[in-house]
Amino acid sequence: MAVGPASFPDMPAIEGLRLGTARAGIKTAGRRDLVVIEVPQGAAVAGSFTRNAFCAAPVTVAREHLAECTLKGAAPRYLVINTGNANAGTGETGLRDARATCAELAGLAGVEPSSVLPFSTGVIGETLPMDRLLGGLPEALRSLDQGAAGWTAAGEGILTTDTRPKGASVTVELGDETVTLNGISKGSGMIKPNMATMLAFVATDAAIAPGQLEALLREAVDRSFNCITVDGDTSTNDACMLIATGRGARVDDEHRLAVFRDALQALMIELAQAIVRDGEGASKFVSLQVDGAMTRQEALDVAFTVAHSPLVKTALAASDANWGRILAAVGRAPVADFDVERVVIDLGEVRLVEGGGRAPGYTEAAGSEVMAREEIPIRIDLGRGEASATVWTTDLTRDYVAINADYRS
Amino acid sequence: MAVGPASFPDMPAIEGLRLGTARAGIKTAGRRDLVVIEVPQGAAVAGSFTRNAFCAAPVTVAREHLAECTLKGAAPRYLVINTGNANAGTGETGLRDARATCAELAGLAGVEPSSVLPFSTGVIGETLPMDRLLGGLPEALRSLDQGAAGWTAAGEGILTTDTRPKGASVTVELGDETVTLNGISKGSGMIKPNMATMLAFVATDAAIAPGQLEALLREAVDRSFNCITVDGDTSTNDACMLIATGRGARVDDEHRLAVFRDALQALMIELAQAIVRDGEGASKFVSLQVDGAMTRQEALDVAFTVAHSPLVKTALAASDANWGRILAAVGRAPVADFDVERVVIDLGEVRLVEGGGRAPGYTEAAGSEVMAREEIPIRIDLGRGEASATVWTTDLTRDYVAINADYRS
Repeated sequence: MAVGPASFPDMPAIEGLRLGTARAGIKTAGRRDLVVIEVPQGAAVAGSFTRNAFCAAPVTVAREHLAECTLKGAAPRYLVINTGNANAGTGETGLRDARATCAELAGLAGVEPSSVLPFSTGVIGETLPMDRLLGGLPEALRSLDQGAAGWTAAGEGILTTDTRPKGASVTVELGDETVTLNGISKGSGMIKPNMATMLAFVATDAAIAPGQLEALLREAVDRSFNCITVDGDTSTNDACMLIATGRGARVDDEHRLAVFRDALQALMIELAQAIVRDGEGASKFVSLQVDGAMTRQEALDVAFTVAHSPLVKTALAASDANWGRILAAVGRAPVADFDVERVVIDLGEVRLVEGGGRAPGYTEAAGSEVMAREEIPIRIDLGRGEASATVWTTDLTRDYVAINADYRS
Repeated sequence: MAVGPASFPDMPAIEGLRLGTARAGIKTAGRRDLVVIEVPQGAAVAGSFTRNAFCAAPVTVAREHLAECTLKGAAPRYLVINTGNANAGTGETGLRDARATCAELAGLAGVEPSSVLPFSTGVIGETLPMDRLLGGLPEALRSLDQGAAGWTAAGEGILTTDTRPKGASVTVELGDETVTLNGISKGSGMIKPNMATMLAFVATDAAIAPGQLEALLREAVDRSFNCITVDGDTSTNDACMLIATGRGARVDDEHRLAVFRDALQALMIELAQAIVRDGEGASKFVSLQVDGAMTRQEALDVAFTVAHSPLVKTALAASDANWGRILAAVGRAPVADFDVERVVIDLGEVRLVEGGGRAPGYTEAAGSEVMAREEIPIRIDLGRGEASATVWTTDLTRDYVAINADYRS
């Protein structure tokens, strides 16, 4: 089950950036499960990683190698991603395996091991089948391709229990030059049934200074991947990487920066929303917009309290405009000196709550009409400030429980 | 579905404290839905109420009246509780109705309206059917009874969608006198399908100064009702009241205070656990003990992060010893400078995690054996301090979603 139509765009090439895949048999024979991304020399690479204290071995090694590259004033040359096994909760063995993967690929490609960043997603707590993984690397290198076929294969090769690949592409005009941004993502719960979750790889041909790239990535992650939730669980392996090859237009003045920033955020929001639409058991795509907060953090706190409420999520699954549950969730959000009389809650174009209770004129028929849709916008105005935030989530269905309780059977 | 055997004790009388009920037809004809508790003169009464900013009208009025009594150096004389309607999200009408209920009962009983505290539980957002509610008060007063029958009827009369009444009674010796504590509670989610949740009424014949009673209640609530969670949702109507009639032994020295405190905490933990055992769709009763924390708050933060994880809860429903999910939940708890290498996780007598990954010697067979039980103890040692906390929760089953998504159909 997923919300909305599936579509994976034909990505234009980003010159010099090539993607290769292999069927290494890491967990399942015959499926694409190993991806290599080749980054051209002279690029800049920024990364954003999980904050889970139990981060997986590849996250530790990717962070280390990225820092080493930065110290040398260079960028990583290869990203290697395996699915089927998260290499998480694997202790020293896991770190050794992640480093060995980088060393093997570095040897085959003729670069330093620290120029390779490893990523894993899949089952937690099992060691990587290193023979099969390393054995797949030559095939992945042989198939490196900078065209649409490379992106499509890579989009498939990073999936775990996703029901469909997730890709997005935009182009923007900077002066008389065209800049391309391509991205792929995977994930369908904040953490999967024993699977490690969300990965995203975004590349552009724009030329951007490394420090600026880092700042742009951080801001875009905060507005996209950090604003989605399926079940509130943060994975051990989450990572989002942004590669700028530098062969295209330079993003070097305020106007160009603004245009590029908007395009990047739009692309990453599309990739993030694709994860929610493919959320485990999801039958609804819900936008939760909170306005009138004192700070953006306050708006986010309220939005996530509502988005994580099992009672709100089950009401959404039932297409029931149960405003009492939304109101109760807003009321328990961590907001100081909250005047509930000023809160207004709208479901699409229908006013649900004002003045501390059900809005006058509200009818269950009107609420049910909006709730029956696949895409449901909820807007909560706290009436106490100017800050806003939007988060995207799904409903909580029997299928979610079935997927997460029965996945071994 | 509920976990463990149902049992409601034969409560001994607490002299002067009487309980009466009526079938007022508030929501469903023929069911006991109105309860009056008569408090003898000279008693002390303490209350603990929901922190939800959208608190219900009866909570506002009960707080006001309790404060008025305290100002006058007296205690409330009557508690009136209706089920079937929470009188929450009802604005000014709701406040007027709660006050009118107090005034009517006060008139019938010959006391001041501020000597009456109102409590409601049931559907949110509908106004009380005042004719039927007020019409039931004479019957409730006529049936006032200080014996076991009064307690049993009251235990039934406060239920909403609970599958069984919840009561507990203990006696302790203070010197050569016996002190009795009786209590009843209701609730089966932290908030029900459109229902407002948790109520508890505890009475004792001990003689305790009001300030001390307040402190004892606050501490006991923190160790009992504030340590349970079914779905993380806090209701608009939660309340816990503690009545000390003062006709029995005096709790007036350190030894007596310690004995009474232990008895009160044990009683309230039993009443709180009864709510978890009757949790919506629950098939497991889970004790989550966190040790080795720097502070109790830190221990609670970790325990609740695990207890609220949908992935942990669905694994529990599946009797799957999925230690990766527990580890990932511990890792995302809000704890600063967390050294995951020091974390130890035990499932009953089986060690699941140590040294940042699966414990050596752990087998899935051993884990599954513990997970198959109805009562599951999980112990997490953070290895960084001396503080501990225990919370109690349930699994997340298909029945939970069915109850909460389909309750209108």
